[in-house]
Amino acid sequence: MRELLDAVAAGEVTPAEAEAELAGYATGEAGRFDATREQRSGVPEAVLADGKTPTEVAQLAATALSTTGRAIVTRADEAQAGAVRERLDDVAPAATLSWSERSRWLVAHGPEYERPDLDASVGVVTAGTSDAVPAGEAAMIVREMGADVERVDDVGVASLVRVVDQLPALREQDVLIVAAGREGALPTVVAGLVDVPVIGLPVSTGYGHAGEGEAALSGMLQSCTALSTVNVDAGFTAGTQAGLIARQIDDASGA
Amino acid sequence: MRELLDAVAAGEVTPAEAEAELAGYATGEAGRFDATREQRSGVPEAVLADGKTPTEVAQLAATALSTTGRAIVTRADEAQAGAVRERLDDVAPAATLSWSERSRWLVAHGPEYERPDLDASVGVVTAGTSDAVPAGEAAMIVREMGADVERVDDVGVASLVRVVDQLPALREQDVLIVAAGREGALPTVVAGLVDVPVIGLPVSTGYGHAGEGEAALSGMLQSCTALSTVNVDAGFTAGTQAGLIARQIDDASGA
Amino acid sequence: MRELLDAVAAGEVTPAEAEAELAGYATGEAGRFDATREQRSGVPEAVLADGKTPTEVAQLAATALSTTGRAIVTRADEAQAGAVRERLDDVAPAATLSWSERSRWLVAHGPEYERPDLDASVGVVTAGTSDAVPAGEAAMIVREMGADVERVDDVGVASLVRVVDQLPALREQDVLIVAAGREGALPTVVAGLVDVPVIGLPVSTGYGHAGEGEAALSGMLQSCTALSTVNVDAGFTAGTQAGLIARQIDDASGA
Amino acid sequence: MRELLDAVAAGEVTPAEAEAELAGYATGEAGRFDATREQRSGVPEAVLADGKTPTEVAQLAATALSTTGRAIVTRADEAQAGAVRERLDDVAPAATLSWSERSRWLVAHGPEYERPDLDASVGVVTAGTSDAVPAGEAAMIVREMGADVERVDDVGVASLVRVVDQLPALREQDVLIVAAGREGALPTVVAGLVDVPVIGLPVSTGYGHAGEGEAALSGMLQSCTALSTVNVDAGFTAGTQAGLIARQIDDASGA
Amino acid sequence: MRELLDAVAAGEVTPAEAEAELAGYATGEAGRFDATREQRSGVPEAVLADGKTPTEVAQLAATALSTTGRAIVTRADEAQAGAVRERLDDVAPAATLSWSERSRWLVAHGPEYERPDLDASVGVVTAGTSDAVPAGEAAMIVREMGADVERVDDVGVASLVRVVDQLPALREQDVLIVAAGREGALPTVVAGLVDVPVIGLPVSTGYGHAGEGEAALSGMLQSCTALSTVNVDAGFTAGTQAGLIARQIDDASGA
Amino acid sequence: MRELLDAVAAGEVTPAEAEAELAGYATGEAGRFDATREQRSGVPEAVLADGKTPTEVAQLAATALSTTGRAIVTRADEAQAGAVRERLDDVAPAATLSWSERSRWLVAHGPEYERPDLDASVGVVTAGTSDAVPAGEAAMIVREMGADVERVDDVGVASLVRVVDQLPALREQDVLIVAAGREGALPTVVAGLVDVPVIGLPVSTGYGHAGEGEAALSGMLQSCTALSTVNVDAGFTAGTQAGLIARQIDDASGA
Amino acid sequence: MRELLDAVAAGEVTPAEAEAELAGYATGEAGRFDATREQRSGVPEAVLADGKTPTEVAQLAATALSTTGRAIVTRADEAQAGAVRERLDDVAPAATLSWSERSRWLVAHGPEYERPDLDASVGVVTAGTSDAVPAGEAAMIVREMGADVERVDDVGVASLVRVVDQLPALREQDVLIVAAGREGALPTVVAGLVDVPVIGLPVSTGYGHAGEGEAALSGMLQSCTALSTVNVDAGFTAGTQAGLIARQIDDASGA
Amino acid sequence: MRELLDAVAAGEVTPAEAEAELAGYATGEAGRFDATREQRSGVPEAVLADGKTPTEVAQLAATALSTTGRAIVTRADEAQAGAVRERLDDVAPAATLSWSERSRWLVAHGPEYERPDLDASVGVVTAGTSDAVPAGEAAMIVREMGADVERVDDVGVASLVRVVDQLPALREQDVLIVAAGREGALPTVVAGLVDVPVIGLPVSTGYGHAGEGEAALSGMLQSCTALSTVNVDAGFTAGTQAGLIARQIDDASGA
Repeated sequence: MRELLDAVAAGEVTPAEAEAELAGYATGEAGRFDATREQRSGVPEAVLADGKTPTEVAQLAATALSTTGRAIVTRADEAQAGAVRERLDDVAPAATLSWSERSRWLVAHGPEYERPDLDASVGVVTAGTSDAVPAGEAAMIVREMGADVERVDDVGVASLVRVVDQLPALREQDVLIVAAGREGALPTVVAGLVDVPVIGLPVSTGYGHAGEGEAALSGMLQSCTALSTVNVDAGFTAGTQAGLIARQIDDASGA
Repeated sequence: MRELLDAVAAGEVTPAEAEAELAGYATGEAGRFDATREQRSGVPEAVLADGKTPTEVAQLAATALSTTGRAIVTRADEAQAGAVRERLDDVAPAATLSWSERSRWLVAHGPEYERPDLDASVGVVTAGTSDAVPAGEAAMIVREMGADVERVDDVGVASLVRVVDQLPALREQDVLIVAAGREGALPTVVAGLVDVPVIGLPVSTGYGHAGEGEAALSGMLQSCTALSTVNVDAGFTAGTQAGLIARQIDDASGA
Repeated sequence: MRELLDAVAAGEVTPAEAEAELAGYATGEAGRFDATREQRSGVPEAVLADGKTPTEVAQLAATALSTTGRAIVTRADEAQAGAVRERLDDVAPAATLSWSERSRWLVAHGPEYERPDLDASVGVVTAGTSDAVPAGEAAMIVREMGADVERVDDVGVASLVRVVDQLPALREQDVLIVAAGREGALPTVVAGLVDVPVIGLPVSTGYGHAGEGEAALSGMLQSCTALSTVNVDAGFTAGTQAGLIARQIDDASGA
Repeated sequence: MRELLDAVAAGEVTPAEAEAELAGYATGEAGRFDATREQRSGVPEAVLADGKTPTEVAQLAATALSTTGRAIVTRADEAQAGAVRERLDDVAPAATLSWSERSRWLVAHGPEYERPDLDASVGVVTAGTSDAVPAGEAAMIVREMGADVERVDDVGVASLVRVVDQLPALREQDVLIVAAGREGALPTVVAGLVDVPVIGLPVSTGYGHAGEGEAALSGMLQSCTALSTVNVDAGFTAGTQAGLIARQIDDASGA
Repeated sequence: MRELLDAVAAGEVTPAEAEAELAGYATGEAGRFDATREQRSGVPEAVLADGKTPTEVAQLAATALSTTGRAIVTRADEAQAGAVRERLDDVAPAATLSWSERSRWLVAHGPEYERPDLDASVGVVTAGTSDAVPAGEAAMIVREMGADVERVDDVGVASLVRVVDQLPALREQDVLIVAAGREGALPTVVAGLVDVPVIGLPVSTGYGHAGEGEAALSGMLQSCTALSTVNVDAGFTAGTQAGLIARQIDDASGA
Repeated sequence: MRELLDAVAAGEVTPAEAEAELAGYATGEAGRFDATREQRSGVPEAVLADGKTPTEVAQLAATALSTTGRAIVTRADEAQAGAVRERLDDVAPAATLSWSERSRWLVAHGPEYERPDLDASVGVVTAGTSDAVPAGEAAMIVREMGADVERVDDVGVASLVRVVDQLPALREQDVLIVAAGREGALPTVVAGLVDVPVIGLPVSTGYGHAGEGEAALSGMLQSCTALSTVNVDAGFTAGTQAGLIARQIDDASGA
Repeated sequence: MRELLDAVAAGEVTPAEAEAELAGYATGEAGRFDATREQRSGVPEAVLADGKTPTEVAQLAATALSTTGRAIVTRADEAQAGAVRERLDDVAPAATLSWSERSRWLVAHGPEYERPDLDASVGVVTAGTSDAVPAGEAAMIVREMGADVERVDDVGVASLVRVVDQLPALREQDVLIVAAGREGALPTVVAGLVDVPVIGLPVSTGYGHAGEGEAALSGMLQSCTALSTVNVDAGFTAGTQAGLIARQIDDASGA
Repeated sequence: MRELLDAVAAGEVTPAEAEAELAGYATGEAGRFDATREQRSGVPEAVLADGKTPTEVAQLAATALSTTGRAIVTRADEAQAGAVRERLDDVAPAATLSWSERSRWLVAHGPEYERPDLDASVGVVTAGTSDAVPAGEAAMIVREMGADVERVDDVGVASLVRVVDQLPALREQDVLIVAAGREGALPTVVAGLVDVPVIGLPVSTGYGHAGEGEAALSGMLQSCTALSTVNVDAGFTAGTQAGLIARQIDDASGA
């Protein structure tokens, strides 16, 4: 510990990095960042932008980058994403940034950051074009956790032949995330046809009674197949759950 | 009218029959029976036993039989069915009775009653064994309205091959009623595979969140296919709607 | 198949048309378009604009037009409709376009497209001025499926005489779609007076408890008449269900 | 007051009667009875049996009878009604009792009790046989408040002619209570045809989605007519509201 | 009738007026206006602006004014109110207009219009400042139906003394409308203190669980007093119900 | 620790007592009993009988008595209470038992158990007779935590004078628990009249819409006074919260 | 009283102050201000800006300041806050104002106003950055009631070590307010670890099913610890409840 | 196939077995049994007893045993379990049966049946005694799918030390199923402490608002950890999902 404090004193280590090392979290202006989440629970800590000011999001992203070498921001709007970009340009000009306008996530890697690499593949399946938003968030975090991602898009149940055509691809994956809105029947249909774990991801499409994803969620919870589910639009949760399963598979494979 | 009243006076026509003839309904001890419903709206009047005492049900059934030549009772429990049987044995010993313990309906035909005969066929499809209750009610009323009934049972989506095996039979029908509980995905899957009108019939199976048919109903309302729906367990409504369509088809066929 | 591929090679057939021919769907930039939906399930494929970007909508509309000779877009806002118009002007200048600002649908016909023509008539009935939005969508798709449409507007139950005045017109139709918001009693009242199938279309009017169409939907599901129902504002679903019934009637008539 | 206390001391007045006189309520073993409710708010105090033990109900009924000359018990089951009868036989053998098994109310009048007599008439209308339970409770309390009651039964909207036949009777009343379950459209239809105040009374019939009176309540709240509403099965509330209106009418008539 | 048609031909009577006279409703560009509603059901027809375009609202208001001498528009926004004013300036420059920005209603009287005058008084009571919107709508329609209005504002239950101070005023009214949001306890408290009929008007204030008036509505429906209720923010319904009661009182008074 | 193990070996201390001493909980046949809950969180551990078999309840009660000198069982039915009595008679014949049939709780004190004694008083107030069940549970646990209990019963808001009469008593308490069902307005009215903390306890009375305590809960959450709330019928929670406040007051008083 | 009226006449006391003194409330242009709320119920009256116009808010704030020496406004938007500032600058230039943009409250103290000072400390705890809005409102009103506030931020349960690190601080408080959104587990975890009363404050974060604070509220109501709860985002209610407890503690301490 | 038909003819193979072999399902008196579900989707087919008659359940169990060598029945009541036992005693006397009265499942193995054996371990964790019912169902199906089961019971969050004590055991598992009722916080707390996939299993305990498992489900869906969820009490679904993950791990391990 003395060493660490010396490094802080010498300016080689920021106080946030030191706190993260010692306490497991870093206290910044905008809150405590859980710097050891990945190590403890296998899931990278991400900044949920919803409900935070642009400044808060930017501060938390900067803390994330400086303590873990990576910053993941989800559900950011243009203003929040802009604030993050500006801040990181300032404090971490060497970092590489990716931004998905459709799925509203932003990932930054420090120059020395090395992403984990798991020997497991996660299929991310969508029923229609509108499912792309949470599916994209799920795919991003699966990739950040180190698994391969295989996208199979636009295979809604109103036209079963589209599903059947993709069965070989679906059966090759280790885990499947299946995103669907409206009546959300696709995860049930898929889970009846493959023998890998399927995670249902209900999407907030649909209108009228039980719209905004409620019918899809209800249908997945009532599914007569072996389906687990996450909340409506919870792409991040579906992705991290798939990522944890991928880690176990990778672990077992001795890879 | 004079003639009718003479017949009443002579005891050849009961006052209920005369009232039905003149006013369109018959006032009995237990309420007004809508004796001209079939003629006016194409749908046979039926006695919904729920919420009535056995005596009331029996009286209404007797009025139905005497004014229209047929009595249809739905959602009857053992006590109500017993009261009807007893009453009809008494006042109409020549009538023939059918009783479905599982679907809880009771039908009586007077000796001279002749059921309509339509040149149209209605498929009644179930996802699983538990869907038999409302599906049976639907099939009964379709038959009473004169259409043919084709049952296709136990073709739930968890095993698509069962649906596909029955596709030729399904495609031969003029209308389909598809009953399903839990997530209720079967009507959507079927409607995507056939080109006849499909009426979804949600069934009150399922437990936990959105159980008791709510998920099935929500899913059918949100379906991305051309599905119309009835209330949970509303086998009678699904059946009469299919029967009305069958009547139109029969009419058009010049049969 | 060889012929088809030769045609593609020769530029006479687009790859999308060829894929549609071979696989039943066409994969464009914005998703798979279900090009054989009409042939398989009797219902024209339409592009639901909700939840898609203007560019995606325009791409899907262009694919629809090139593979089936017709494009139907529903629930489009001004920006989406504009993008479609621009794209079609570009790739299919000979197509004729119709756009309903109130009901937010857009239909394009290629120069050689011939609409089906069914010997059946669908009545589209509204309780009040505000029901025009989903009723208009229903009428459009009924027409696109080839049936005649008879509009009967503004016959809400608060003033029964307006309904009664229109009874002769209502009784002449083969199927009725009855749109109503608030308490949604009109479909029940109409279904008690006519002997043709009635499809209830709840409309998202109403405020406070069970507003936004929920009371109307509940009332139609609980109706003591032979009513089937679709989701709140689901004009497209009501219309396609009526269209499928019209097809069966047309078929039976030997027309 | 001295007089009153002397009378208590002399055993001519019970302590409960004295307390009622002085404080406005009487404290018995089973709770405080609001002895001046009628005088203060125009509504007779009644004992709601639901959730109370038979002994508690009987004690409260006895207190009611001794302090106001009348006891009204609602929603009593057989055991509670039996306990009341037994207790009153004991403490007030001269009282006259009425009991409605169907509507589960019990009324007792002391030998000297004189019911108010208002110059106003309340119509109590039902859509079907099952509505009799809360309608009966409403009619009872209207009568206890002194108005005339006109019952018009079994005029559901599925057969409008039954309503129209009763219009003259309906239009003669000063106030209408209209009870209906399922989709609950009758109060709306009636309110569109008469020019007297209509109170909607939703009934807990119906099944599946929005069953148990919820659809009826929602429909009455969303009604596009001038309808006020009470809770599902709240016959007592509908009746007292009608009774208060009758009192105002009687008052104005100078009767 | 001949006379009427002659007058139309002569331009003395508009076709809409003639239709209103003959059929009871007038068909304009924007729908059928129920011109005999007041005569039939005692309630003036009003144009609910919600869900209509400004042009439709203006057309209906003009038809109302020309057929009944009065136009009542509710829930109008600035654009709709502007369109009405412009249209009426144009077609009926002699009419007098009133507009409530807060309660969003607009009333126009033709130069010869004479408002009914009833010998009855309606108290309109609010719990807090925010209840003014629906309370104002209720007061307007009560006045248009001819009764006197007494406003008692800002007497919420958190400070009972304010209610008690106003009791004499409240007790003098013939009917009370009591508007309250949040927990909506005021109508219950008032109804326990007065002996006139009370109509509860829940207001869409409140936030979080059961906000937007749902808690207030629930509380009024569950009230242990003789309260009838209308939907959340349904000032118009509360007012017309009170107006109908006032008409009955006026009628009985022989005024 | 050696000492403790010697005592176990010698049979002077049961293994459960030893485990409770060492780990803070005792593992019995029916689950782990949290023996240090009171010490850690100030709240006595109680056995919630709902959802457990009689045998499990009895085992947990016996463990409670042997490790903490007291057993508290809530929501026990007759069978569960009987099983507890039998078991305690067997293993702890010297304990004193109390049982409330109405409120369904059972308390046993070992012969040497001494209840805490706090210098604070908690008022437990009910709106009506039916509120006695959860109010009784609340009063029991307050007493077990050592505070004085003052019951004020039957002061519902339909008759405000009953509340006002009890104001002096209410204002003398240090904390108030106010139980009310139906519309649940009493806690709001009381909280507006006293300056001590009030905890609202909604009771599962009421029927129809928002019945079973939902309206009461909603009203308390929306209350415009400084009210905190617990779940419907959660007498135990209300009581322990009041008990914790009483402990703080007692602590501050230096008693 | 004469003295007071003389002072009014002399212009030394405003009519509002005089009314507040005499009647307990002050009637201004925008409603009655409850000037004796604090004295009667221990809770300062505050102006809830939601649903009021800027002018109304400003008038009520001015009345508050002139009658009680302090104005507290909650849930104000920029326009409402601006109107208050302008008005107070005008009528009370000597007052000191504080404004929280994040928590949207505004407090003004007259030059002679002296805040109460209680010998009690309230901990205000948040699970994450987004909980700051209602937590800030709670902290403000606790301070205005005179207690000390200790903020413990950002200790969500996903990383328990953050909670455990703060346990000593939490255990030192007299009362805790624990704010949490999403699943709202923090108050339960904290209440299991401390022996002081905990008030759960659910926050409207979260999305999809049971989002907007509903899951958090449900979880707190179902908590198996001694937790009381307030409505979603009801920081003011949580704060005043904590303040009332602090008053009792201060009172007992003889401070 | 010829061979198979010869065997049927020779009575060596039952028609059900032959159909299962050929079509993938076996049609019995009580419905189609999905005999190839395990092979196709990795999940053993089980008979859900809910909603079926005892005879139907027994027939389906007999078909299961004869076609797959094993019968699994879930949610059976005493009568259904008795019917199964009787039937199997009759047709398959050599089978071994297990029956869980608490969790209501029944498993039968034919004499030659060999259960799969996976190199993976699933932890089944409960918060309290009442969670045993669905947890037991989950554990059964995990075992039938071949994984090891480690039970960790009674570690509710009200006493965190119980969770912490079991952390080493929890961290050793490959997958965790965590069952919890009431507020359902345990899965969130566990998922924050371990780095293996956690499946939340909400249990139908709890009462009042959001009782019967709804609060637990909501909380798990809103969890800020990487949790997937199944429906309330869906032990079978949680178990099969865990079993599928165990299969993937076993597969990867090359075991």
